Amino acid sequence: MNKFEERTIQSTPIFNGKVISLKVDDVTLPNGATSKREIINHPGAVAVIAITEDNKLLLVEQYRKALERSIIEIPAGKLEKGEMPIMTARRELEEETGYTTDDLTFVQAFATSPGFADEIIHIYVAKNLTKLEVAAELDEDEFVELMEVTVQEAEAMVADERIYDAKTAFAILWMKLQQ
Amino acid sequence: MNKFEERTIQSTPIFNGKVISLKVDDVTLPNGATSKREIINHPGAVAVIAITEDNKLLLVEQYRKALERSIIEIPAGKLEKGEMPIMTARRELEEETGYTTDDLTFVQAFATSPGFADEIIHIYVAKNLTKLEVAAELDEDEFVELMEVTVQEAEAMVADERIYDAKTAFAILWMKLQQ
Repeated sequence: MNKFEERTIQSTPIFNGKVISLKVDDVTLPNGATSKREIINHPGAVAVIAITEDNKLLLVEQYRKALERSIIEIPAGKLEKGEMPIMTARRELEEETGYTTDDLTFVQAFATSPGFADEIIHIYVAKNLTKLEVAAELDEDEFVELMEVTVQEAEAMVADERIYDAKTAFAILWMKLQQ
Repeated sequence: MNKFEERTIQSTPIFNGKVISLKVDDVTLPNGATSKREIINHPGAVAVIAITEDNKLLLVEQYRKALERSIIEIPAGKLEKGEMPIMTARRELEEETGYTTDDLTFVQAFATSPGFADEIIHIYVAKNLTKLEVAAELDEDEFVELMEVTVQEAEAMVADERIYDAKTAFAILWMKLQQ
């Protein structure tokens, strides 16, 4: 796991925000030369492949400022400090879709952008969904619109780039493989 | 595409590095309240699902400083300024694997971390690979080890988290769907 390890000579903190922080590390490369690595630290996230009784996928549309457009994604959110990923999965499902479940199964975890960020996203599948009687509240800066689509409808959204993010692209292939 | 648009009140540049830059935008939310968005700008990237004659997948192991470990990924790299993604795909394939091809087909593009970054990764599939007689040179701060694996071997690497990034997770599901 440490092949070609780059040892840190010095780490310079640049920014410490509410979501991400940035540092620049001076490193020694495997050949003894030195280089700089720009690194984003992120608390990590979860995303939920939430499948309804009639085998539809729950998706949420939301505005992504980084892209300056809205896209359609599987429900997801950041890990709170000390929160187990499976609890985050249930919380985000409740907040973003109004559904809940006890039937959450871990699928896979992966780094989203290992070239510059340590963000890990933990993917769960949620089944046996029930509608909450009282909707959970979104974060105060979050606005989403819920939709329920078939895999075929989701693939059409990939084709016209309304679906345009890695976790949702992964989720759609994963669902196709279950069929 | 502009549902729940967040309009920029003010944009504050924080950092401008060799790979990424960081800004903080003050925005107006759909309900009229204001918030801050921490945004990473990245030039974008390509990744290549490179399939050998005997249906093996080319993978490269490299150290990822952000994760402080080495992981095994499909060949990938950043877009150079003004470079068409398909040219980047071919260049990175040549540099990281020593193979080349004219048979590159676009699969899909997606944002890796739309919550905080504008990085888009363009995925290509490469077939009819031929070995370069003279190996292409890697970037001076790049060290990778090439391997050729079956889909089943790649799935084992997912299971023990040697494969641990979004684009490679996507690539393996994509290959499974071709079989």
